[in-house]
Amino acid sequence: MYNFSFHNPTTILFGKDQLNGIEGLIPADAKVLITYGGGSAKRSGLIDKVKTVLGNRKVVEFAGIEPNPHYETLMKAVEVIRNEGIDFLLAVGGGSVIDGTKFITLASFYKGDATELLKHGFTPITSDTVEKVLPIGVVLTLPATGSEMNNGAVISYDHGKYPVMSNLAYPKFSVLDPVYTFTLPAIQVANGVVDAFVHTAEQYITYPVDARVQDRMAEGILKTLIEIGATTVTEPENYDARANHVWAATMALNGIIAVGVPQDWATHMIGHELTAMFGIDHGQTLAIVYPALMAEMKEQKGAKLLQYAERVWDITEGNDDERIDKAIAKTSEFFESLGIKTHLSEYGVRAEQVADVVAQLEAHGMTALSETGKITLEVSRKILERAF
Amino acid sequence: MYNFSFHNPTTILFGKDQLNGIEGLIPADAKVLITYGGGSAKRSGLIDKVKTVLGNRKVVEFAGIEPNPHYETLMKAVEVIRNEGIDFLLAVGGGSVIDGTKFITLASFYKGDATELLKHGFTPITSDTVEKVLPIGVVLTLPATGSEMNNGAVISYDHGKYPVMSNLAYPKFSVLDPVYTFTLPAIQVANGVVDAFVHTAEQYITYPVDARVQDRMAEGILKTLIEIGATTVTEPENYDARANHVWAATMALNGIIAVGVPQDWATHMIGHELTAMFGIDHGQTLAIVYPALMAEMKEQKGAKLLQYAERVWDITEGNDDERIDKAIAKTSEFFESLGIKTHLSEYGVRAEQVADVVAQLEAHGMTALSETGKITLEVSRKILERAF
Repeated sequence: MYNFSFHNPTTILFGKDQLNGIEGLIPADAKVLITYGGGSAKRSGLIDKVKTVLGNRKVVEFAGIEPNPHYETLMKAVEVIRNEGIDFLLAVGGGSVIDGTKFITLASFYKGDATELLKHGFTPITSDTVEKVLPIGVVLTLPATGSEMNNGAVISYDHGKYPVMSNLAYPKFSVLDPVYTFTLPAIQVANGVVDAFVHTAEQYITYPVDARVQDRMAEGILKTLIEIGATTVTEPENYDARANHVWAATMALNGIIAVGVPQDWATHMIGHELTAMFGIDHGQTLAIVYPALMAEMKEQKGAKLLQYAERVWDITEGNDDERIDKAIAKTSEFFESLGIKTHLSEYGVRAEQVADVVAQLEAHGMTALSETGKITLEVSRKILERAF
Repeated sequence: MYNFSFHNPTTILFGKDQLNGIEGLIPADAKVLITYGGGSAKRSGLIDKVKTVLGNRKVVEFAGIEPNPHYETLMKAVEVIRNEGIDFLLAVGGGSVIDGTKFITLASFYKGDATELLKHGFTPITSDTVEKVLPIGVVLTLPATGSEMNNGAVISYDHGKYPVMSNLAYPKFSVLDPVYTFTLPAIQVANGVVDAFVHTAEQYITYPVDARVQDRMAEGILKTLIEIGATTVTEPENYDARANHVWAATMALNGIIAVGVPQDWATHMIGHELTAMFGIDHGQTLAIVYPALMAEMKEQKGAKLLQYAERVWDITEGNDDERIDKAIAKTSEFFESLGIKTHLSEYGVRAEQVADVVAQLEAHGMTALSETGKITLEVSRKILERAF
């Protein structure tokens, strides 16, 4: 096991009717900016519910944070904060709204050009860079990204997607009421299952470092997602399935399975380019790239792929190669069972466009991805070719 | 899954040479009270190492916190804090030193009679009761209790052991360097494995509430302890085994496997009486009581015992009863494989003394234990009789 530091300060309020609990977690005299997305939270009545709980606090609304939240949109919210004297940000939505709100808080009092905040990559932005932020609260409506309990965001700018990390951006609290996710379209639920699954796998299918509790936990999250995946998609009001989906997605990326182990975020990085270039949903890009990446990196990831095959899929027959191939096939089948297509061709991408994707990876500095840095542009090209 | 709230603010610094990291986590002008136990931390040179890292800060030492830390001892440290104007408490030791230091900080500025702090049971003490505390840091030397990353303590007073819970008592940070545990006597290591195992089981072997991630995580901790138990006892300098032991013990009781599930702390409560009355080590008391409790509560815990048998011990043959019995036998064998005796008679306790233990349970209000409250005094008596 590698050395590690771990600290996660977010308070989780999980379950039915937990929204009332936020009353005690937001200062009574705070002026609150409620951030949300395309309007479903408004239409469902959730924004009104939130305002009721906020009582006499002054509230301003900022709507319109889009999927893959865009820098230009978020900077409009920064203007609102500066003009209105906002004290507290309350994100009501899924990963995009939460990610966007994290960027908003980092940018609000940043003295320089806020596009500079996009250039830190996976290096966390500290108080050396950002002097002051506003506290964030979250009311989650989509189980997928884990953003509700971590320090990361992904922001779209120009034609790229940029990771932004900062311990200043941890939500102070997150309300995880599975009932608020019942009205999601099936495709978003399915994308959410894939996102949580691939987050987990990216912290697990690397190389062994004898981190036993972390491995068992990652396997537990994967098995849970496999067990409840089809149900949570086809029975949106099945509370137990959805509750397990929500908590699995949060646990997949709150840092606890990441401690002391290598990590491989190559699938996310390649997937980001597919979203930016072709508008493919984030979850779909992962379902396309991940099986291809496992196949291409079979040698590097061999030991962990065998462990994955045995412990997650109960595959014990055949030689090493056969067991790995079976586990990869099972993974694709699982994504497909949720209604997610796993081949680039199924999304209208043509083989000759692979070169364009690789060019974008190069433009964004993604030239040495994975836990070993061995996913060069050439390897990314091979992965993308496999994904057709 | 039940509703839950979760918040754990402790920063973990895990691994070799992480001690240096505390320099940035303690104010430069703090006057620090280092608390420790019987002197092994002093003799090993660890206290001197800690003082070196503290640099120019003023340091006062408080030695002599005993196993099952006693109220009278801890109140002497409270005197030191009041007389010396201490700003920060640094506990160097295992669960007893950490628990003791938590009580010290709660008592330091408490205006009433500090014995009142022992009367809250499992109800957390809040800032309504304790106005001010000093921050606590931890340098762990014994993997067992999980106290390094939770809000609980157990304090001995008169002839009882009293749980004391408070979110004010979370360590600000804990250094978990497995190397600092290499010099522990084998019996303490074995006790630590049992403590972590039973902590996990007490949050897992109750009744099913479809909390899948939590169940898988609990099973993962149990399997890890089974896998590394014998090695960490017999090869004290095996870093990998010890690192897994340390992290498993912390994860067993930092609250993360407890979210949304029922809990059964009966074994700890009964075990506390055995320690208070007969001086049996805490870990040993758990190894005595837990298998007997599983057997006695077979009906109430049936579904989870079958899950435990299958997933933790791979027991799939035989009828329900046989599989459960096999799992209980395996549990006892595991404890015994670590060098821990599992029968009361092996500790010189006589059958007629069971009545005295039950009387003490009654005196301490332990009349309706377990996840259902169905472990009455009569059931505790049966459990104790089974434990011979």
